[in-house]
Amino acid sequence: MTNKHTQPCSVAAALNVFGDAWTLRIVLEAFYGATRFEEFRRSTAIAKNILADRLRQLTDDGILARRSISEKGTRFEYVLTEKGEGLSTVMLSIIQWGDRWVYGEDNKPVKLSRVGTGEGLPLFVPTWRDGTPIDRDSLVPSPGPGANEAIKKRFSDE
Amino acid sequence: MTNKHTQPCSVAAALNVFGDAWTLRIVLEAFYGATRFEEFRRSTAIAKNILADRLRQLTDDGILARRSISEKGTRFEYVLTEKGEGLSTVMLSIIQWGDRWVYGEDNKPVKLSRVGTGEGLPLFVPTWRDGTPIDRDSLVPSPGPGANEAIKKRFSDE
Repeated sequence: MTNKHTQPCSVAAALNVFGDAWTLRIVLEAFYGATRFEEFRRSTAIAKNILADRLRQLTDDGILARRSISEKGTRFEYVLTEKGEGLSTVMLSIIQWGDRWVYGEDNKPVKLSRVGTGEGLPLFVPTWRDGTPIDRDSLVPSPGPGANEAIKKRFSDE
Repeated sequence: MTNKHTQPCSVAAALNVFGDAWTLRIVLEAFYGATRFEEFRRSTAIAKNILADRLRQLTDDGILARRSISEKGTRFEYVLTEKGEGLSTVMLSIIQWGDRWVYGEDNKPVKLSRVGTGEGLPLFVPTWRDGTPIDRDSLVPSPGPGANEAIKKRFSDE
């Protein structure tokens, strides 16, 4: 990816890993169960060279692990690591936002249900420990343990 | 953004809106309270021409609304719309993933707390209605009301 973010910020750091038009799309396919190059290619229609590059990058970033699945070591599968599985909440939040704000619930292209019961995906609302939804007005950002001078200055200004 | 996704998929559609190295970073600043061009510029260090372009795009996409704040109409502020506020869950999930997997909790650059009480951000785990965490194995994707032939074929193959 070009234009890497350099500021200490968890969103910037996360975007350096998957803030690319294709990367998160590939992670989504892994969530849906794709493991083979051909599966990723078929379901995303990404050009082969871009797909190969992004799979390599995702492997380097520790989101996918590449495993040999043939004795000769010529066939591989890509599986989500724990770090990759950790993106599950991000993926689900993005799916819900897209369903609601881009397509509308009545026109969403893919439906996610619970295995066995068929329960539809409930709307996620992050809450504080007492159950109150976390809205923007209730959040106060402050410098964390890894803050640099710029971050310290910025939040002390407010 | 180059390389627009064309497939019907809520993640692809969402990435067409904010799957750019800078876009979500700007939305984050809006969440932290930035409203003016200069504030966005100072806190993200994005080049002016890129920032102007992304603010225009975010306004066109209905995530930010541009409001005149001077009588002459020469000064503006950018505020999150309801669609933009809807990205709150996405932002919080990304922040938590970056804090955990990129920086580590002990080294995170920014700390988010609850106004008044100082309660730290709880880890956000999407759950089914009975409280069971939604993991990948419990999710079944199937064609939704807006599925096209490719989606129908794809999920019927599995």
